[in-house]
Amino acid sequence: MSQSNLGPVKRGRQFLHTPGPTMMPDRILRAMDRPAVDHRGPEYAAIAERCYAGVKTVFKTRQPVLISASAGHGAWEAALTNTCQPGDRILMAETGAFSAQWKQMAESFKLDVEYVPGDWRHGVDPNAIETRLAEDTAHAIKAVAIVHNETSSGAASRVAEVRRAIDNAKHPALYLVDTISSLGSMDFRMDEWQVDVAIGGSQKGFMLPPGLSFTAVSDKALAAAKSARAPRHYFDWARMLPDGKTPAFLSTPPINLMFGLLEALDMLEEEGLEACFARHARLAEAARRAVAGWGLELNARDPAEQSNSITAVLMPEGHDADAFRSACLDRYNLVLAGGLMKLQGKLFRIGHLGDLNEPMILGTLATIETALAATGVPHTPGGVNAAITYLVEADNG
Amino acid sequence: MSQSNLGPVKRGRQFLHTPGPTMMPDRILRAMDRPAVDHRGPEYAAIAERCYAGVKTVFKTRQPVLISASAGHGAWEAALTNTCQPGDRILMAETGAFSAQWKQMAESFKLDVEYVPGDWRHGVDPNAIETRLAEDTAHAIKAVAIVHNETSSGAASRVAEVRRAIDNAKHPALYLVDTISSLGSMDFRMDEWQVDVAIGGSQKGFMLPPGLSFTAVSDKALAAAKSARAPRHYFDWARMLPDGKTPAFLSTPPINLMFGLLEALDMLEEEGLEACFARHARLAEAARRAVAGWGLELNARDPAEQSNSITAVLMPEGHDADAFRSACLDRYNLVLAGGLMKLQGKLFRIGHLGDLNEPMILGTLATIETALAATGVPHTPGGVNAAITYLVEADNG
Amino acid sequence: MSQSNLGPVKRGRQFLHTPGPTMMPDRILRAMDRPAVDHRGPEYAAIAERCYAGVKTVFKTRQPVLISASAGHGAWEAALTNTCQPGDRILMAETGAFSAQWKQMAESFKLDVEYVPGDWRHGVDPNAIETRLAEDTAHAIKAVAIVHNETSSGAASRVAEVRRAIDNAKHPALYLVDTISSLGSMDFRMDEWQVDVAIGGSQKGFMLPPGLSFTAVSDKALAAAKSARAPRHYFDWARMLPDGKTPAFLSTPPINLMFGLLEALDMLEEEGLEACFARHARLAEAARRAVAGWGLELNARDPAEQSNSITAVLMPEGHDADAFRSACLDRYNLVLAGGLMKLQGKLFRIGHLGDLNEPMILGTLATIETALAATGVPHTPGGVNAAITYLVEADNG
Amino acid sequence: MSQSNLGPVKRGRQFLHTPGPTMMPDRILRAMDRPAVDHRGPEYAAIAERCYAGVKTVFKTRQPVLISASAGHGAWEAALTNTCQPGDRILMAETGAFSAQWKQMAESFKLDVEYVPGDWRHGVDPNAIETRLAEDTAHAIKAVAIVHNETSSGAASRVAEVRRAIDNAKHPALYLVDTISSLGSMDFRMDEWQVDVAIGGSQKGFMLPPGLSFTAVSDKALAAAKSARAPRHYFDWARMLPDGKTPAFLSTPPINLMFGLLEALDMLEEEGLEACFARHARLAEAARRAVAGWGLELNARDPAEQSNSITAVLMPEGHDADAFRSACLDRYNLVLAGGLMKLQGKLFRIGHLGDLNEPMILGTLATIETALAATGVPHTPGGVNAAITYLVEADNG
Repeated sequence: MSQSNLGPVKRGRQFLHTPGPTMMPDRILRAMDRPAVDHRGPEYAAIAERCYAGVKTVFKTRQPVLISASAGHGAWEAALTNTCQPGDRILMAETGAFSAQWKQMAESFKLDVEYVPGDWRHGVDPNAIETRLAEDTAHAIKAVAIVHNETSSGAASRVAEVRRAIDNAKHPALYLVDTISSLGSMDFRMDEWQVDVAIGGSQKGFMLPPGLSFTAVSDKALAAAKSARAPRHYFDWARMLPDGKTPAFLSTPPINLMFGLLEALDMLEEEGLEACFARHARLAEAARRAVAGWGLELNARDPAEQSNSITAVLMPEGHDADAFRSACLDRYNLVLAGGLMKLQGKLFRIGHLGDLNEPMILGTLATIETALAATGVPHTPGGVNAAITYLVEADNG
Repeated sequence: MSQSNLGPVKRGRQFLHTPGPTMMPDRILRAMDRPAVDHRGPEYAAIAERCYAGVKTVFKTRQPVLISASAGHGAWEAALTNTCQPGDRILMAETGAFSAQWKQMAESFKLDVEYVPGDWRHGVDPNAIETRLAEDTAHAIKAVAIVHNETSSGAASRVAEVRRAIDNAKHPALYLVDTISSLGSMDFRMDEWQVDVAIGGSQKGFMLPPGLSFTAVSDKALAAAKSARAPRHYFDWARMLPDGKTPAFLSTPPINLMFGLLEALDMLEEEGLEACFARHARLAEAARRAVAGWGLELNARDPAEQSNSITAVLMPEGHDADAFRSACLDRYNLVLAGGLMKLQGKLFRIGHLGDLNEPMILGTLATIETALAATGVPHTPGGVNAAITYLVEADNG
Repeated sequence: MSQSNLGPVKRGRQFLHTPGPTMMPDRILRAMDRPAVDHRGPEYAAIAERCYAGVKTVFKTRQPVLISASAGHGAWEAALTNTCQPGDRILMAETGAFSAQWKQMAESFKLDVEYVPGDWRHGVDPNAIETRLAEDTAHAIKAVAIVHNETSSGAASRVAEVRRAIDNAKHPALYLVDTISSLGSMDFRMDEWQVDVAIGGSQKGFMLPPGLSFTAVSDKALAAAKSARAPRHYFDWARMLPDGKTPAFLSTPPINLMFGLLEALDMLEEEGLEACFARHARLAEAARRAVAGWGLELNARDPAEQSNSITAVLMPEGHDADAFRSACLDRYNLVLAGGLMKLQGKLFRIGHLGDLNEPMILGTLATIETALAATGVPHTPGGVNAAITYLVEADNG
Repeated sequence: MSQSNLGPVKRGRQFLHTPGPTMMPDRILRAMDRPAVDHRGPEYAAIAERCYAGVKTVFKTRQPVLISASAGHGAWEAALTNTCQPGDRILMAETGAFSAQWKQMAESFKLDVEYVPGDWRHGVDPNAIETRLAEDTAHAIKAVAIVHNETSSGAASRVAEVRRAIDNAKHPALYLVDTISSLGSMDFRMDEWQVDVAIGGSQKGFMLPPGLSFTAVSDKALAAAKSARAPRHYFDWARMLPDGKTPAFLSTPPINLMFGLLEALDMLEEEGLEACFARHARLAEAARRAVAGWGLELNARDPAEQSNSITAVLMPEGHDADAFRSACLDRYNLVLAGGLMKLQGKLFRIGHLGDLNEPMILGTLATIETALAATGVPHTPGGVNAAITYLVEADNG
């Protein structure tokens, strides 16, 4: 479709700062832009083997990884239906729109959800988890399921501390963590943190288009899956497990996305995971400094929880975040994400994950500052200066 | 990954004649090779709207179409869980490996499957369907589910005749048809044939990579879905239905595959569906003439059922089809599909669907003839001559 | 080649701010990424016809346009050898490195070059041209040859005023203009300004890779070419002129670049040339405001001559521009251009032509400000603020 | 441009069998489909260095190689103007349209061409060369210039034998060889055969789009260039020689073609030059067997001279080759090359060079056989059979 059918002519590269999909590297797009191969043949087998091994590295796990042709919600579903059955109790925590959707899904499968309330401005409270589990002396709670990085709020949960909370309560519940918007951007340690099910998606830190989901599964979770009787097929882990013989998909795998995944894994390995996390932290801090410089408020209240993959910024009272976002798109070809569900119109979100560098984030921050001024949103000029000052320190520090 | 890591160096374009993925047109690969857009923004909304409308045209339906980020098996699952619940009876027909897998899936969801036996060399027998339905005077059978084009056998079922069988039996069962390897390659008429659920996938006649599935759903099927109580979420039709406001996906849609779908729909429209079907019929007949010329036997016994998207060829006794296929790949960079399940090693399959023309199919047939001779498989030379003779007739006829 | 062989791992898109090649739009790269076609066949003929017509529009001329497989220097050579012969006198003006190279080329072909001196900080002085021509009462000067936009200095010459100077002197000299780094970015009017030979290249405002040069030729210049006896073949205009029958190249044309050219012409038409020039002017002014904000000096002294496609910035005394540029590349993946010939090390140049928008130029300016601070180059912070302030005015003005 | 603007809708991959451009591998197209880099920066320098070294390998030379942004005709021009000056005598040999064009170019530069006549069905006669040189006792002949593989006739010249002819005549003439359509497809040994100037182009055995030319130059030729006084600039070898410091181009090099060249060199290295030549020989012989099978006549009379990169086939009397070629394109999306100059309409040419394999050439030959029958051209059926029989022998031999 020619661009001219899709609104006013825009020139220059679009700055896409949603929290997934991201601005994908050309290397990855090009890697997918090739003829498919026989998914039952030796070339695909070799590619798939490297992909499965590589994704383990990113999860920091030695346990099996499953790859599915689905959005991340498919892996959510698999996590629930493979570990629990109707009537089982599951402990979830309200952190924002994604925790709310996952909870709704659990209810669709007739799980008995215990939902720790939250204000959509914080991560999960480990103390609350520990209290609930300690109260559950009958061990009726089968699983604790949390979102590592709540994309809707910009607040990350402390996964290791929640692990300690479970341990403190001496509770045998499975530990399920949605790492969709953190994996590959922020540190996550499946094995060290004894996570039983970790869920990722292709369109975030993996720098791919949407269409693949990843699940890392512990032995404990696999054992639970064997006894869980909830009907399932497409998302049945037993069918998704690589058997060492055939590429491990229920049916035809999304071959071209796997080409892209292989390239993404090469890129992550080249940079190194820790360097990649440090880069995300640096660029995220630059964004936060700019927000502070503008005198605007971050949605995530606790500095220890502010996400390194997305920053959610509250609009001043009386100003609509979505109108502001439209102006950014229409005038400057900059895409920001909006508030979801009850936060709609109240905040805008700056995705800063994936293949990002200083010129990109500075261009975005400077354009936001331009748009704030051009649309009359009250703010203090100089946010970009604050970001620059921080980056100079970080560079020379 | 450099090609050199994946076996001996092969030069020239690989002739990929699996029945999906296919040899995708450059236009489609290039359409997907672009930055993603915000799936909540106006550009994606316009693209999605055109895609949903276009897929309807290919199904020949005015009823709603759903698009899912999944393999075709995901749409299979949705068809079962949205129309039936545990204990419901469903009538299926054994046509080959894919009917067998769909049956197995139905059993996973505790459906009571009545399975009309078959020899994997024919399509569904409409008379058998009529007999079973006529016997079901209590109308316990909730649905009839068949595979239009049984990719594993090369035999297509007569969907319109099965419809008449249902009508003759005056049975209210829903009519579910898997059109995965026929849609866009062979005529299919959702509305005229009163199909209630039709299922397609991206990697066949749509000339795309795997990763998208399509479902067209009749009002009758949607009504059944409302009352079906089987737990479901990712594949819940109610969530997948476009609401006219937001792009109709449970979560992040596979944006880049949608770019490709739009291009594929443009290509199908340019050529015209009927011209496209005629091209498939012509090139398939050329393949069948070559097989006859070699004195080899088609797996599909009934000429009225021989598929226009795939030709399955029985190996002479004492010769292993998979060894032959390996020779084709290793020596000539030609990929043929093999026999599945109980047919493994007994036949090879030539996919001839999607973006194919005379030089491509002739190159494949001539290479097969070369490989038959080079590997000592008994055959009569001159199969390619027969194909040429037919194509000359077809061209001048 | 994997990026890892080429230095430290860099992430994020490279900001390439040389004055050609530019950051090419994906649409153009993708348009070139397709199989070649027969350059003697009908499809290529249709493409070539549209390309030749489109390039005329960009030159604002109705006179013939020639396209050559060469760098812009090839078109320079053609302009000289088709209009002049050894011993002919040509009037050129010193504006910087490119005028110097063109002069050197003229001397290679034994032309008698009269060179109006300049300080590499100004465009051509129309008065000086008028004076020289007026003195040439014998009309020995065959041609006046100037560079519209001196890429090395950032100073543009006033082509229309030089035309008036020629007219004022009532001199019949041919008027040759190098528009390589202005065409498509800054206004140029071949016919209105009575330019006889105008020269462009693909890698600038056309947003293409290097490899094509364009020449627009007036009837007067074509007549001169007929009588010019200088030996030439590859660059003989007579061979390069489309004859309406065969695509007009001496030999095999660079087909894939022509695919890209067609897309580039579509993009220029979509945006509109005047809108494109206004966008270049706006983003260039933002860059100049930033430079002023930093308290640094522009190389181009006369505001009326400051280029809208490139800004050359003088380094403070005692600081090496090339060391600064290396820091920009190594630390931030930002490529700036350096000083050429006698300006080497003394200035850096910011290319801002082609497919550029606000976030891109702001990202570049903010990164330069970061790098100035990080490397200890004396400057006043706040250049980006000045750019933002200007863009807000421009947007709301 | 949508394909629908360019004639009737064609489906399937176009079989482009012109002798350049060729059917380029996806790997190469994709390698060029990336953002440009600074041609004065370190990444480009590394790429260029590898390219220059790799092209030497293909020429089988240790002497300098020059790369130019031009069609092969540009390298022709450079070969003439750098070694000869007006009035110099040069010995050329009539082999077909390309020798005729090169001769015409030599005359444009006022060289005194001695032209050994030929019938356009043979390569150069070494005896004729020896005789002429032996007669030239005054050594007035500065250079012998021949075409290795005369693309218009399908006859290759015996370069080594011509070398011996020169030696036998004890003549000091420079030896210039156009290897444009042989390099990378047929054996050529610059140093062993003491060729002084060898000329290649990108769109043939290098599997690239047109736009680059290559020249390998001996010390003797470089010495001649120093004393040659013919005016030249763009094609002045002295300017094109890599100096070990800056990438060796007069001006901006065609960066993206260089990306492609690097990938092409990797591919040639992976396969190995000798294996590549053997593959060309095998597929060419299959084509010749098919022609013989059809009872048609090869234009190249001498089997020892029949080209491995192109086969020219004479049309039966009373049949127009161009009408036949149009039918191939319109009906089957197969592009054949036509007769050039005096051969127009009398023959069609099958290019079989570059990234080709058995299925591709067999598809082409079978389609030609189909088209011969469909358009009523007298021939014997079974040409493809003969090709298959040969390939089976070759495979098992």
